[in-house]
Amino acid sequence: MPATPVLSQLPSYEVIKTIAQSLKAVSVVRMLEQEPNRAAEFTLTAAGLQLDYSKHLLDVQARQALLQLAEEAKLPAAIAGLLAGEELNNTEQRPALHTLLRASSGGSLGSKFDEVVAARASMRQWADQLNAGELRGFSGSVITDVVNIGIGGSDLGPRLVTEALRPFHGSVACHYVANVDPADLQNTLLNLQAETTLFILCSKSFRTEETLTNSLVAREWMKQSGATDADLNKHFVAITSNLQAAADFGIPEKNCLPLWDWVGGRYSVWSAIGLSCAIAIGWENFELFLAGAAAMDEHFQSAPLAENMPVMMSLLEVWYVNFFGANNHVVLPYDHSLQKLPDFLQQLTMESNGKRVNKSGVLLDYHTGPVLWGSAGTMGQHSFHQLLHQGTQQCPADFILPLTTHTGMTEQHRRLVANCIAQSRTMTVGRSIDEAKSSLLERGMDEASAGELAPHLSMPGNRPNSVITMASLAPQTLGALLALYEHRTFCSAVLWGINPFDQWGVELGKEIGVQVLGLMAGESSSGSMDTATERLIGEWLAEQ
Amino acid sequence: MPATPVLSQLPSYEVIKTIAQSLKAVSVVRMLEQEPNRAAEFTLTAAGLQLDYSKHLLDVQARQALLQLAEEAKLPAAIAGLLAGEELNNTEQRPALHTLLRASSGGSLGSKFDEVVAARASMRQWADQLNAGELRGFSGSVITDVVNIGIGGSDLGPRLVTEALRPFHGSVACHYVANVDPADLQNTLLNLQAETTLFILCSKSFRTEETLTNSLVAREWMKQSGATDADLNKHFVAITSNLQAAADFGIPEKNCLPLWDWVGGRYSVWSAIGLSCAIAIGWENFELFLAGAAAMDEHFQSAPLAENMPVMMSLLEVWYVNFFGANNHVVLPYDHSLQKLPDFLQQLTMESNGKRVNKSGVLLDYHTGPVLWGSAGTMGQHSFHQLLHQGTQQCPADFILPLTTHTGMTEQHRRLVANCIAQSRTMTVGRSIDEAKSSLLERGMDEASAGELAPHLSMPGNRPNSVITMASLAPQTLGALLALYEHRTFCSAVLWGINPFDQWGVELGKEIGVQVLGLMAGESSSGSMDTATERLIGEWLAEQ
Repeated sequence: MPATPVLSQLPSYEVIKTIAQSLKAVSVVRMLEQEPNRAAEFTLTAAGLQLDYSKHLLDVQARQALLQLAEEAKLPAAIAGLLAGEELNNTEQRPALHTLLRASSGGSLGSKFDEVVAARASMRQWADQLNAGELRGFSGSVITDVVNIGIGGSDLGPRLVTEALRPFHGSVACHYVANVDPADLQNTLLNLQAETTLFILCSKSFRTEETLTNSLVAREWMKQSGATDADLNKHFVAITSNLQAAADFGIPEKNCLPLWDWVGGRYSVWSAIGLSCAIAIGWENFELFLAGAAAMDEHFQSAPLAENMPVMMSLLEVWYVNFFGANNHVVLPYDHSLQKLPDFLQQLTMESNGKRVNKSGVLLDYHTGPVLWGSAGTMGQHSFHQLLHQGTQQCPADFILPLTTHTGMTEQHRRLVANCIAQSRTMTVGRSIDEAKSSLLERGMDEASAGELAPHLSMPGNRPNSVITMASLAPQTLGALLALYEHRTFCSAVLWGINPFDQWGVELGKEIGVQVLGLMAGESSSGSMDTATERLIGEWLAEQ
Repeated sequence: MPATPVLSQLPSYEVIKTIAQSLKAVSVVRMLEQEPNRAAEFTLTAAGLQLDYSKHLLDVQARQALLQLAEEAKLPAAIAGLLAGEELNNTEQRPALHTLLRASSGGSLGSKFDEVVAARASMRQWADQLNAGELRGFSGSVITDVVNIGIGGSDLGPRLVTEALRPFHGSVACHYVANVDPADLQNTLLNLQAETTLFILCSKSFRTEETLTNSLVAREWMKQSGATDADLNKHFVAITSNLQAAADFGIPEKNCLPLWDWVGGRYSVWSAIGLSCAIAIGWENFELFLAGAAAMDEHFQSAPLAENMPVMMSLLEVWYVNFFGANNHVVLPYDHSLQKLPDFLQQLTMESNGKRVNKSGVLLDYHTGPVLWGSAGTMGQHSFHQLLHQGTQQCPADFILPLTTHTGMTEQHRRLVANCIAQSRTMTVGRSIDEAKSSLLERGMDEASAGELAPHLSMPGNRPNSVITMASLAPQTLGALLALYEHRTFCSAVLWGINPFDQWGVELGKEIGVQVLGLMAGESSSGSMDTATERLIGEWLAEQ
């Protein structure tokens, strides 16, 4: 493997440090005033999305230096390598082919693409039959409800798409169960009838603890509701690469859809893992969802770095993490249907880039992936926006704004849009103590009180944020949006020198989980556990 | 007003900086080995909760220094002042009396307590009548569903309590609508019948934009479903201090429950704002919820600092924010019913402590409130735990663990408990490169490959975390838990010298929102807006 470029050793790194230092006290408002074309020049378009990044602590020189950094980190070659199916996941010796899942042709990856096409045909069959009311359960009644059992990437993606595209739903209701906490499945089953419910079990290995535990409970529920063993194939589908384990569970091969080792969980909504959302929105809409992502792939592949939306968003991420000390990033979708987007992006970005060694295993001397968090606007305005505006922490923000609504309630939606635009502006312009004082005096407050209160109303402004807009939230634009963040995540990984496609950090917790479960069942620890863990297990035992 | 203590000028501040420096390379595992009683000694009990803080980068000397800092910041006097009803919200000239809302006697605050008692009686009447099926809608049918319309503090608290205490629900289903996005209300009304639905409108001022907008849509829906103006009093209740505005909306005084200016939104679930959750769980359970919080208040008031659970949690917050550079805090409830807890705590902590000036208006030279985020375990294990274990960011964590389940599914719950305890241990112990390599060799990997892969499996450990346990998630323990975080938030505010009870930082966004709405309606900006905002408005206009 060629040596991994190390960000802090790239020629431009020190240059950018100096530039960043000079921009820490910049006024974005002044830059917008002095550069009449800034708003337009710092806006990019791709696959139905617009990115306005004009309100960042960034000038043309800084942007140029960051683009130079991307060249030095060999980002163009990495992008080409990703899309050509090179073995970029070096610690697992695999390519990462999520872009192939939404491609319309296979190029040099023809044989793998044939498998993708076959899987799509199988997904389409299930989706079409269900939406046509042609699938029946053990009692002969038509299947009306689908429950997706999966966790992490086998849950967050399809769940998000199903929620986000509610106006496109057909007749089948799709539900999601992920947590091993029995309350999750129990609450879902409360409102369902076994005879009209189909379970989709999503687990590449068919060994995921939570999914298997929930699947067993679901099977038991089905049997107690009157299904025989022979009926199970009317109620269970598996998305897995472990056909044997699925068969042992009682799911025949004809009810299994494939997964491949070159699809990571957090990049899998485009694969058969997306079956539940394909059912929810219907196959044609799911194809539009794939096409939207493919359009972003095409942009990512062909646009020059300076006009490349995922690249620019990634450079901004590195800019704040490595040169401004930010260690979090907030995502604020101003669309209630996107309220699960931060959850999805948490997995995508934090599981991909929450790493401390580079691809060659060398411990890094700089920060990598930040904490990603957020919630649907306007909810956050009545919650954490206080800290965004007046806190001491740096929280670079992405506002995401569909410009029209499917609800038909345009007046209400207009207020939502106004709030989004206003919050972005507020973060940028801030308010000086003098301005705050004037405003208080105008409201009739006396001089002394206004002087005392004004510092509490003042806000620094210059809080960096992007606004991503789209004409409407539709299958294509949602596909493009998710692909945008996938590629942004990949670019940041390349800049940091890390492998975004493995997740070795979750292994140890699983091993220790098995040990703890043993101790809870009465096995002796023989000193293998720390005293704090032993005390906690004792506390649990005392309540049983 | 007496001068506000400034954290960075307190005598112990520099001492603690030195101590913290020495603890940055400490091994928590070694401390647990060398101090056999550490697990027990670093555990506190209060109001049915246990806090295990033995896995922090903290020794006895550091703890002692932090307690000394608390004394220097006059924390004991501040605690006493809060509970005695002193005017601690200095920028709004009000006390903060949320503890009075759950008190069983009024002490020196007798007249205010009388109002609380009267409001409780009114809440009880509504809750009892609804649960007894005695309230009927315009058609004569019994009311079966309640929709709470509120946002921020008028939403997050009652929503959390309703979800968390599902096993305690009676016959009335409670729903929550907050977002001004029409999709929120529309999705909720889809499954409801107007004639059997009661709306509770929560807005202290009766002017909150989102709540008013949604309320008008709800009223229109009610009328279109057949209700006359005279019927509205059967379907609308208001929690407000603006009786006139409620009357203008069509809600008579007998349908209004009071709020007072000494109850902040994020501290209001204990007031009439909690009516919806009191209905959901029934009055007796709501009283137990209040009693749980009151038990935590009693502990907070009477326990010495060293044994005071909210105080210790707050000292740990300051410890990491100000001495270790952490700027976020992750909350991980291992109970699916608590999945909304991070949202609730986001408002509580970030709106309270996302401030950059102290109570006297002086700009601070140190960090205050961190970003709070999180999700229900085990979901996060398949998402962001990768970063918790192997990322470069410091994310102090609170695990929250009920030791038993209401679901009856003990085997599944046992796995949930094991996962929680294991994740806490994993963050602490980590895994060295050598250990990782041995583990790979044991699995049959060859020497060279194991050597190459081991750095990717290694984890630093020493990632600080607390574990908060309770026998079960019940009204009392939930009340105690929320009061615990309220008081933790207050203590941190005292240490940072800030006022946790105002939120001036959200004002400007509202003002700019009105201006943007005007421009969207065609008003001329006359140069009042920046060009980026004008461009965004133009983009929106182009889609209309």
